Amino acid sequence: MNPIEYHPIGIIHTSFKTPDGAPIQPMGARGSSAEIIIAPDFVEGLSDLAGFSHIILLYHFHLSKKFTLKIKPFLDNTAHGLFATRAPSRPNPIGLSVVRLVEIDGPKLKIKDADVVDGTPLLDIKPYVPAFDAHEVDRIGWLADKSTNAGKTVADKRFMKKD
Amino acid sequence: MNPIEYHPIGIIHTSFKTPDGAPIQPMGARGSSAEIIIAPDFVEGLSDLAGFSHIILLYHFHLSKKFTLKIKPFLDNTAHGLFATRAPSRPNPIGLSVVRLVEIDGPKLKIKDADVVDGTPLLDIKPYVPAFDAHEVDRIGWLADKSTNAGKTVADKRFMKKD
Repeated sequence: MNPIEYHPIGIIHTSFKTPDGAPIQPMGARGSSAEIIIAPDFVEGLSDLAGFSHIILLYHFHLSKKFTLKIKPFLDNTAHGLFATRAPSRPNPIGLSVVRLVEIDGPKLKIKDADVVDGTPLLDIKPYVPAFDAHEVDRIGWLADKSTNAGKTVADKRFMKKD
Repeated sequence: MNPIEYHPIGIIHTSFKTPDGAPIQPMGARGSSAEIIIAPDFVEGLSDLAGFSHIILLYHFHLSKKFTLKIKPFLDNTAHGLFATRAPSRPNPIGLSVVRLVEIDGPKLKIKDADVVDGTPLLDIKPYVPAFDAHEVDRIGWLADKSTNAGKTVADKRFMKKD
């Protein structure tokens, strides 16, 4: 299968300077302020986005080491298949976070709740729409009694690239 | 900013053979069955995924034409900034759908509700977890009185690559 080449459309700036100690989900970053700076070529595409209170960020986990297919995630002591986890080291290390949009000022988006490391390359922004994006589930597998711990659990170095 | 290279981890097979006429959101594909075939190198990463009733698919909109920054989306007659829409022609054309997971059999995932064109290259699978992914919003901008129409609206050729 042919490789696919993407180019960042901007950079996410947060107070989390390294993955080690950063929140692992937006619920752990609740209330924290952050900023996105969109590259000049794409600013026109932000038009009408300010009408949405929540936006979906897709970004590149630029500090993650190469993936392995079985891993111990932050929220369990047992190894799980990588695709059954939200770990950042993935074959295609694309991160997904829903954050609150506070304000747009030219190329700058003020956001809250970003569980993202400072300097993260942004790939896409989409409006968050509950009718499309919120779903009632029957089961959440190994996360059944663990998902709510994501607000008080922080990352460590396990998925970090060595530099 | 440096380019980022990704490689598909599998292919999504659906009954929608072309974007023209395909559903524009999973709610429009509700009940339709589809299949994902994961490349052999990544099958081990599916372990424990079957415990989740819903999964997030990230994929490449391989049939979309080059983006423009202001577009008329399927759900409105007015142009909007691209990032305020879910249109498939984007600077980085990454699609996001939450689908129901029915069964995993080796490299094959049986799914339901995939609003995706047959042959779409899959980039990532993540477990869908309401505590991480479902959010109450204050506002959904131009989609306020239109998001529920996504179940009965189908795509046309406006974002299709010419071949």
